[in-house]
Amino acid sequence: MDERVGARLFFKCENLQRTGAFKARGAHNAVLALDEAVAARGVVTHSSGNHAAALSLAARTRGIAAHIVMPANAPAAKIESVRRLGGHIEFCAPTIQAREAAAAAIVAANGATLIHPYDDPLVIAGQGTAAMELIADIGALDAIIAPVGGGGLMGGTAVAARHLLPGIRILAAEPAQADDAYRSWRSGIRAPGIAPDTIADGLRTTLGVHGFVLLRALLDDFATVSEGAIVAAMRLVWEVMKIVIEPSAAVAVAALMDGRIDVAGQRVGVILTGGNVDLDRLPWQAG
Amino acid sequence: MDERVGARLFFKCENLQRTGAFKARGAHNAVLALDEAVAARGVVTHSSGNHAAALSLAARTRGIAAHIVMPANAPAAKIESVRRLGGHIEFCAPTIQAREAAAAAIVAANGATLIHPYDDPLVIAGQGTAAMELIADIGALDAIIAPVGGGGLMGGTAVAARHLLPGIRILAAEPAQADDAYRSWRSGIRAPGIAPDTIADGLRTTLGVHGFVLLRALLDDFATVSEGAIVAAMRLVWEVMKIVIEPSAAVAVAALMDGRIDVAGQRVGVILTGGNVDLDRLPWQAG
Repeated sequence: MDERVGARLFFKCENLQRTGAFKARGAHNAVLALDEAVAARGVVTHSSGNHAAALSLAARTRGIAAHIVMPANAPAAKIESVRRLGGHIEFCAPTIQAREAAAAAIVAANGATLIHPYDDPLVIAGQGTAAMELIADIGALDAIIAPVGGGGLMGGTAVAARHLLPGIRILAAEPAQADDAYRSWRSGIRAPGIAPDTIADGLRTTLGVHGFVLLRALLDDFATVSEGAIVAAMRLVWEVMKIVIEPSAAVAVAALMDGRIDVAGQRVGVILTGGNVDLDRLPWQAG
Repeated sequence: MDERVGARLFFKCENLQRTGAFKARGAHNAVLALDEAVAARGVVTHSSGNHAAALSLAARTRGIAAHIVMPANAPAAKIESVRRLGGHIEFCAPTIQAREAAAAAIVAANGATLIHPYDDPLVIAGQGTAAMELIADIGALDAIIAPVGGGGLMGGTAVAARHLLPGIRILAAEPAQADDAYRSWRSGIRAPGIAPDTIADGLRTTLGVHGFVLLRALLDDFATVSEGAIVAAMRLVWEVMKIVIEPSAAVAVAALMDGRIDVAGQRVGVILTGGNVDLDRLPWQAG
């Protein structure tokens, strides 16, 4: 991988994290920070992705209830993953309105705390511990790169890395077909996602308010990558590194392989965000 | 994985080894042990599997030539892997006779040393370093398990583990459809492979003479597993551990999952032998 990119790469393998993604960090930080009385009423989310499993695990760790609102047509693997971790699933219609309404109803009925998947300072701080650990493990870096979805991981990464290494370059990557964060960072106006359509399903979310502020303040460079580059980078990591990463995790690798950001000869930290994929539907297989 | 097997498992991830398989160990040990004058004439093999890439790397490490005899119809990925590591490929007809003749011709012409993929004491000793490292890393084990092909890894594992931990149980696993080592171990007569037909392509070889002696002397138990169990174990490792292993590496995991060997509550070392797979042809995909 170093030869292909022309840099010295240090990967933080969050695909090997509990629940298969970095999301376990933010969920634990948010859940463990709750006051005793508030925590006792449980937590809730209407995200059905990696955050749902992460919140279920964090709640189980603290011994409280996690209520997970999911569309009735959610993939069986996601339902099973939440169930195995002890999350209480509430099914709803597959619209964002129905999901928000179902979550609000649980908050009203139980006094449970809604833990947002990314637009929450405690969640963002938790995600930043991946960069902290990487820097503690391998020392000084010239640059660090992560993919951007809602901005939770990128925001936390930026804060942690800049604090520990003031001279580090903070780099972001996003699919060109879901580039709302890129456009927001460039323009200074938080832009909504316009029909994001990318194989990197974890990055279809719109940049959050906190993420927007942190990216504007701390990012040094930002690359967008094609769907083909994402698939090629994902496959290369599987083949060469022998680890399973999901398409979202390949986005930062794709940015480096494409040469969209100059890191020649540098020491670069790369956050591989997760490894939750459907092994029956791999993106390099003919449809 | 621990919950599914009912034991505490410690994996030695040789899929993450250089060249993607444990074979790098034996090849390096054999090549580095050669006298200077002998080494200068190069090394040769007619194995086209993981040993070919391993020998190419070991020869490059020592700065000598590696001659790799391969059938003209070898998969492009294997040819590319050997080329990238600097091996000199000699193509031949796809029969074992043609391969042996081509290798013998190189030995005669150049004085190169034939390094057998498994039936060689230095190769076997090198493979045993995987178990040595595992025990150094995680301490006492009640048992250790590895798959058996030609017996190089299993033989080296058995010698190393029994020496370091005299009370350890040495366990072997083999595909039921390529069970020559199992039959040899049971009967005390080294049996030839009878049309081995298994997805675990690294284990189709016949048990070597050295491996046979070591298995008879040191093995405590031996399980054979079905093709279905191999595929299920391989897929489970990919899904749960987020690492890419090849079918041969899944055979030991399959033996534990099947409950074919009693390890309840024990600390068990598992050698995951390699991760070289064709990502376009995964065994759980419909033909």
